[in-house]
Amino acid sequence: MSDLLWQKPGVSVDADIQAFLAGDDVVLDRDFFLHDIQASRAHAEGLQRIGILTDDELAGIARELDALGADFSAGRFVLDARYEDGHSAIEARLTERLGDAGRRIHTGRSRNDQVLVATRLWLKEKLARAQALCVEAAGIALDRAQAEADVPLPGYTHLQRAVVSSLGMWWAAWAEAFIDNAVRAADTLAWIDANPLGSAAGYGVNLPLDRDHTTAALGFGRMQVAATYAQLSRGKFEMAAIEALSSAMLDLRRLAWDLSLFTAGESGFVKLPAQYTTGSSIMPNKRNPDVIELMRATYASVAAARCEIEQLLSLPSGYHRDLQLSKGALFHGFGKGLQALALLPDLLRNLDWDMERMRAALEPSMYATDLAVDMAREGLPFREAYRQAADPARWADGDPAASLAARVSPGAAGELRLEALRERLNARMQTTMGST
Amino acid sequence: MSDLLWQKPGVSVDADIQAFLAGDDVVLDRDFFLHDIQASRAHAEGLQRIGILTDDELAGIARELDALGADFSAGRFVLDARYEDGHSAIEARLTERLGDAGRRIHTGRSRNDQVLVATRLWLKEKLARAQALCVEAAGIALDRAQAEADVPLPGYTHLQRAVVSSLGMWWAAWAEAFIDNAVRAADTLAWIDANPLGSAAGYGVNLPLDRDHTTAALGFGRMQVAATYAQLSRGKFEMAAIEALSSAMLDLRRLAWDLSLFTAGESGFVKLPAQYTTGSSIMPNKRNPDVIELMRATYASVAAARCEIEQLLSLPSGYHRDLQLSKGALFHGFGKGLQALALLPDLLRNLDWDMERMRAALEPSMYATDLAVDMAREGLPFREAYRQAADPARWADGDPAASLAARVSPGAAGELRLEALRERLNARMQTTMGST
Amino acid sequence: MSDLLWQKPGVSVDADIQAFLAGDDVVLDRDFFLHDIQASRAHAEGLQRIGILTDDELAGIARELDALGADFSAGRFVLDARYEDGHSAIEARLTERLGDAGRRIHTGRSRNDQVLVATRLWLKEKLARAQALCVEAAGIALDRAQAEADVPLPGYTHLQRAVVSSLGMWWAAWAEAFIDNAVRAADTLAWIDANPLGSAAGYGVNLPLDRDHTTAALGFGRMQVAATYAQLSRGKFEMAAIEALSSAMLDLRRLAWDLSLFTAGESGFVKLPAQYTTGSSIMPNKRNPDVIELMRATYASVAAARCEIEQLLSLPSGYHRDLQLSKGALFHGFGKGLQALALLPDLLRNLDWDMERMRAALEPSMYATDLAVDMAREGLPFREAYRQAADPARWADGDPAASLAARVSPGAAGELRLEALRERLNARMQTTMGST
Amino acid sequence: MSDLLWQKPGVSVDADIQAFLAGDDVVLDRDFFLHDIQASRAHAEGLQRIGILTDDELAGIARELDALGADFSAGRFVLDARYEDGHSAIEARLTERLGDAGRRIHTGRSRNDQVLVATRLWLKEKLARAQALCVEAAGIALDRAQAEADVPLPGYTHLQRAVVSSLGMWWAAWAEAFIDNAVRAADTLAWIDANPLGSAAGYGVNLPLDRDHTTAALGFGRMQVAATYAQLSRGKFEMAAIEALSSAMLDLRRLAWDLSLFTAGESGFVKLPAQYTTGSSIMPNKRNPDVIELMRATYASVAAARCEIEQLLSLPSGYHRDLQLSKGALFHGFGKGLQALALLPDLLRNLDWDMERMRAALEPSMYATDLAVDMAREGLPFREAYRQAADPARWADGDPAASLAARVSPGAAGELRLEALRERLNARMQTTMGST
Repeated sequence: MSDLLWQKPGVSVDADIQAFLAGDDVVLDRDFFLHDIQASRAHAEGLQRIGILTDDELAGIARELDALGADFSAGRFVLDARYEDGHSAIEARLTERLGDAGRRIHTGRSRNDQVLVATRLWLKEKLARAQALCVEAAGIALDRAQAEADVPLPGYTHLQRAVVSSLGMWWAAWAEAFIDNAVRAADTLAWIDANPLGSAAGYGVNLPLDRDHTTAALGFGRMQVAATYAQLSRGKFEMAAIEALSSAMLDLRRLAWDLSLFTAGESGFVKLPAQYTTGSSIMPNKRNPDVIELMRATYASVAAARCEIEQLLSLPSGYHRDLQLSKGALFHGFGKGLQALALLPDLLRNLDWDMERMRAALEPSMYATDLAVDMAREGLPFREAYRQAADPARWADGDPAASLAARVSPGAAGELRLEALRERLNARMQTTMGST
Repeated sequence: MSDLLWQKPGVSVDADIQAFLAGDDVVLDRDFFLHDIQASRAHAEGLQRIGILTDDELAGIARELDALGADFSAGRFVLDARYEDGHSAIEARLTERLGDAGRRIHTGRSRNDQVLVATRLWLKEKLARAQALCVEAAGIALDRAQAEADVPLPGYTHLQRAVVSSLGMWWAAWAEAFIDNAVRAADTLAWIDANPLGSAAGYGVNLPLDRDHTTAALGFGRMQVAATYAQLSRGKFEMAAIEALSSAMLDLRRLAWDLSLFTAGESGFVKLPAQYTTGSSIMPNKRNPDVIELMRATYASVAAARCEIEQLLSLPSGYHRDLQLSKGALFHGFGKGLQALALLPDLLRNLDWDMERMRAALEPSMYATDLAVDMAREGLPFREAYRQAADPARWADGDPAASLAARVSPGAAGELRLEALRERLNARMQTTMGST
Repeated sequence: MSDLLWQKPGVSVDADIQAFLAGDDVVLDRDFFLHDIQASRAHAEGLQRIGILTDDELAGIARELDALGADFSAGRFVLDARYEDGHSAIEARLTERLGDAGRRIHTGRSRNDQVLVATRLWLKEKLARAQALCVEAAGIALDRAQAEADVPLPGYTHLQRAVVSSLGMWWAAWAEAFIDNAVRAADTLAWIDANPLGSAAGYGVNLPLDRDHTTAALGFGRMQVAATYAQLSRGKFEMAAIEALSSAMLDLRRLAWDLSLFTAGESGFVKLPAQYTTGSSIMPNKRNPDVIELMRATYASVAAARCEIEQLLSLPSGYHRDLQLSKGALFHGFGKGLQALALLPDLLRNLDWDMERMRAALEPSMYATDLAVDMAREGLPFREAYRQAADPARWADGDPAASLAARVSPGAAGELRLEALRERLNARMQTTMGST
Repeated sequence: MSDLLWQKPGVSVDADIQAFLAGDDVVLDRDFFLHDIQASRAHAEGLQRIGILTDDELAGIARELDALGADFSAGRFVLDARYEDGHSAIEARLTERLGDAGRRIHTGRSRNDQVLVATRLWLKEKLARAQALCVEAAGIALDRAQAEADVPLPGYTHLQRAVVSSLGMWWAAWAEAFIDNAVRAADTLAWIDANPLGSAAGYGVNLPLDRDHTTAALGFGRMQVAATYAQLSRGKFEMAAIEALSSAMLDLRRLAWDLSLFTAGESGFVKLPAQYTTGSSIMPNKRNPDVIELMRATYASVAAARCEIEQLLSLPSGYHRDLQLSKGALFHGFGKGLQALALLPDLLRNLDWDMERMRAALEPSMYATDLAVDMAREGLPFREAYRQAADPARWADGDPAASLAARVSPGAAGELRLEALRERLNARMQTTMGST
């Protein structure tokens, strides 16, 4: 490892302890190294504006930061165990290339600043990605709701056959679900869109840092004002971001559950394209919907990320090293979560229904509720109609098309009101466009 | 128990099983019985508008619902084990008093509708309360930040003395924290502000229910359009609400941690008013800050509520009885959480500082960072200044007032920018006024 | 409320704060009031043995404790808000009835002692109950495995039809699962079977308390030696107990999942007795397996209890008031968990199979694996046999009975080895008998 | 990637989907590749015993497995993305080297078998390691309890100074805690010590596999009998193992909390050796106890691992691909947890007390409880003694040595009963020796 910034002469270092301290830091830091570089540049600009750096020094730093970013992206610079962490690597590189200008870059900032601002930028990017994926999934669901509005599908409660439903209703549900998830991602993005850079170790510094400049230069919606709050928000903002992602993952899990049942031999409503299935090492006959199952399971990884961060936060105010563990958790949760979510749009596009199997699963009892309501509309008190309609002798094979057409309560098969959903989705898409 | 709505003749009932099925439902339902009544009235109005109820029938139902609400509030009607749940109790009462008009109230709705809409109204109320408490706490913190801006307080990182901080910085952190928490409560309230009434068992009904009317009458911001999504949102919306509350509880826990340390003999920075302390049954000398500790601990109850609901939601779409358990969890989490949060404003008002103890905890090393930055400002590269300032021989007792005054980075003691926080708080207060 | 033991004159009391401090304590304390009385008696005996109480005083205390227990059990004494908690109530009653002897009962103990020892006794009782229920469930599963050994049932992986399985295999799995769960409950019971009484507030007292006597008198397996560890074990032991219960709940959840699918219209393998189902308020045709669903859901309540306690335990050593919240969590988790588990034995006894539906769900592909293995046994390398057996042209309707009989790997249908399970179960039953 | 075992001709493969399916499998599989090899050898021996492999084939397989293990350990064979997973890699290597003998190795087993048995062996190793570390930590704590028995240390409740405690009591608490943790690790190891190999895909095979042989050859305590239960135990056993580790981590967290406070400026009771501290990038004066903080924080990683697995297990019986995610979680939890635990023994050895600071933190109020008990011993009813001793006028600087010597309740400073703890520890050490 390169010299530790804070190392004092004569202090022995234990290898196991150093390994424990370092954790996976340099590896994890790769993921937001570019954000750290971007923030370092804004910080340098701010230092120039208050006279700590000369114009030339700033120009040199800007040039070297750009070069470092390009080297890193191209694989010419590898962030590895030579460095204590990504933050130190940036300072080391600048110092190596620029001498004293490099030794000035850390004026008025701490590594806490760096990790806070880089993580914040990273989180904004991930939430924007989650939002965009939700918008895309909702759009596909909405299109298919319209296209397959009248196709009958058994409607279940308690996994028991209940009433006739439709593909229109099934798709519309996911459309509205993912519109909500997109809104939540956007709300959360706005909520965390605050610049922590300039809070130093949580108590500010005796320099008039130009935080207004860095806030604008990094594209933040507002400054995170109180220096001490910047530290308090670490973990708290991360949790909120994961919770927004979890909202989408909850629905993804339920959607995957539906498909897991719909592809089971007993239902057979859905045929998955072959690329979504795998085989068995011992059973030659199997094609298993592993992709669906892993999409369902991915909720667990996102939940684990939230759990790991939550467990760290029973602390007094001020920075504590405990918070370092939030980084790995975040990468795990967003990494796995977005990977699964990114497969959703194509999966929705590619679903193939077996309408005969769906039709075959309808049975007379599923018209009993329609019957009871019909009687109620004709004047019988509903509770009495319910009693009469409970008699299986009154059930006969109904006409699913007629049943669906008559289901005219807003949001039901006969009155889907997709235009209301489309309107909300469009509003969201414009926001997404704007924000990216 | 009264007759079960759905009971069929000849089916035996097992007492243990019935107890398991019922759970604490009738007791829990008390908490949102008034919301159920309110929604029942809106539903009846909707039925009248589509001709299922006559004007007279509606008038009777409205009158009896009002009376039931009044009886319940006054303790003349007790929701107890005579009823399967609150939903059935309302129908039973209307039927008892009005005959066939009562038997018509359930036309086009299910108990799922009822629990969804009553819970939604209840959640909105609780989030508004959380928001208001956060606004109040933030206001007090902001006032005290201004009033005590210049009082030195040791600033810690890793629980180690780091630099001189101030009460101004400490209070400003909590102010900004609780402004954020208020914003999140408001965002979440808006996100869940969608009317599920009219989705029946998740598939709508063959009646043109006037959902636009019920949406407006119940004060919802929008209709939850897709009938099938209404069911999918159960648990999901509850979790979001708890997560918004948790955000405030996270900060409350950290604040309580600060106070727990500040009241310890080793620090002694804070004197708690006697009503926040209790004694020991065996140690005559003790005055313990139990209230602080229970405020800290309450995060656990809110987390448990979230955990309980989260564990229920690995399900296919459609209603499942599993979801019933979300109700008790919700009451536990919001009950305990809001109770703790409600004590916060007064606690903040009543905190009493021992400024001598705070002053005594300052030590020369805490000026080393100021020194390094000063040298950097005068031209020494920061990394070199840092090395020189690490020498304890260069530390001397500094002047805390001067150190704080010079800390002019925005958000630090010399430049708190409280007006930016106040502006954001005022914007929030107006929203709160409007929404309550 | 009665006078607080530790109340000092002139200290004002705030009603909201007192309500927050008290929580549901007196209500919760009812659940282990008898254990507190039992431990109080052992403590008094110990005090007599070291000369703090006279023989007469002990006799009086023993008599009054017995009377209090009897009054409480009979409903003549109600533990309610007159008391700060159950601990104070016992001392108050003894003092009221016995004067100075009552005022001596608390010599050398703290309420921390009381809550520790009463909870420990309560936990032992609950774990013994969990163990007994697991043993009972395992026994029924084992009997039915034997009785229905040869009945074919589709075997699934990924919810896809895989190979022919049998009721024998299905039941044997649950038998072994619940034997393991019983063993874990017993192991955990032994692990926590340590007497904390006599640790006072965590630092012992200047009296030679006869802890050997109280350990024996209360039936503990060992003394929890270090006074300071008694406090550290609070929460830790509670979590271990909940985890042992959770182990059984995990299996109960999976079993309920099986039954939820087996009772769905698509499978129809199981017919639930009517008492395990309920109806719908709107759909006259429904009989829903609500009991199964709530059994599945109950895992959530147990998980929430664990979560609540876990969240409390990020603390330094020594008692903190935070720990009080573990009590409600414990009651919630064990209350709900044991209620669900107690319904399991009868449910297992009452399950009714529809063998025709099960038989109808078998299909030719389910013999492909048998075929591949047969070819391998005859000399073809398995990987080649697998390739050949993947050809649907080679699949034909097999004979399920023959397939099962040939499945002779130990633990499979043709070689269930139930006697090995029965032996392990019998060993466990003897322990259970012994321990109750 | 090499050919997929189960791949069928003409099925297109999507790169994103394949990446999602593969996850980190080949990387994770490295961790238990040797266990997979070991189990493969036992499986091959079993096949030879039932005539599926000839003696020569077995000899070849055994030789090649040994070579593969040696190559892997020496870095000559790298498990990487050429393989779908470690399981496939073994079969591919054997086939490449041995032809048909390699193609026979998978006869009668599935990859589910392989992952189950390899994970089980891995878990046993990790639990044995956890147990050994707990035993070591307990031994050190016990030695120091004896050596420093009489050194006074402030005793706290609610973080408030309560009574005089001692280093003897502090160390004894951790000794007993880690003895318990060792016992729990051992109990859990015994509980999961069951051989799943031979269950195939959960339904056994039509071969008389010699599971008794593989059970003995792999050193398992018993056979996991029911083939279907082997699948049900996946995740369940992993959770139990993590919970046993968590028990130690809970105590480690509390110990780290103590040290975090003891090293704070306000207490200063402990001086950490320099290798346990790090510096700040901006504050030249800081030496921070980062190692302590990360030890405290590591509980979060173990909790996250449990959370991730727990979230996967709401499933019907049978294998589901969801379970694959348990592997990464397990490695994360045990990897981080054991790394932290492994630092504990040296940390305990190296702790250095500042006895002057400890002495200075004692204050007169800390003798009030001793005083009250003294009065009670002399005949005053305790409740009256308590009232009198609450008067600060009666408190005077006591003699800590005398206070400790008089604290003779078993487990307190004057009667530590370390020999009882040593006896239990020795019993445990013998077990550990035996098991390793």
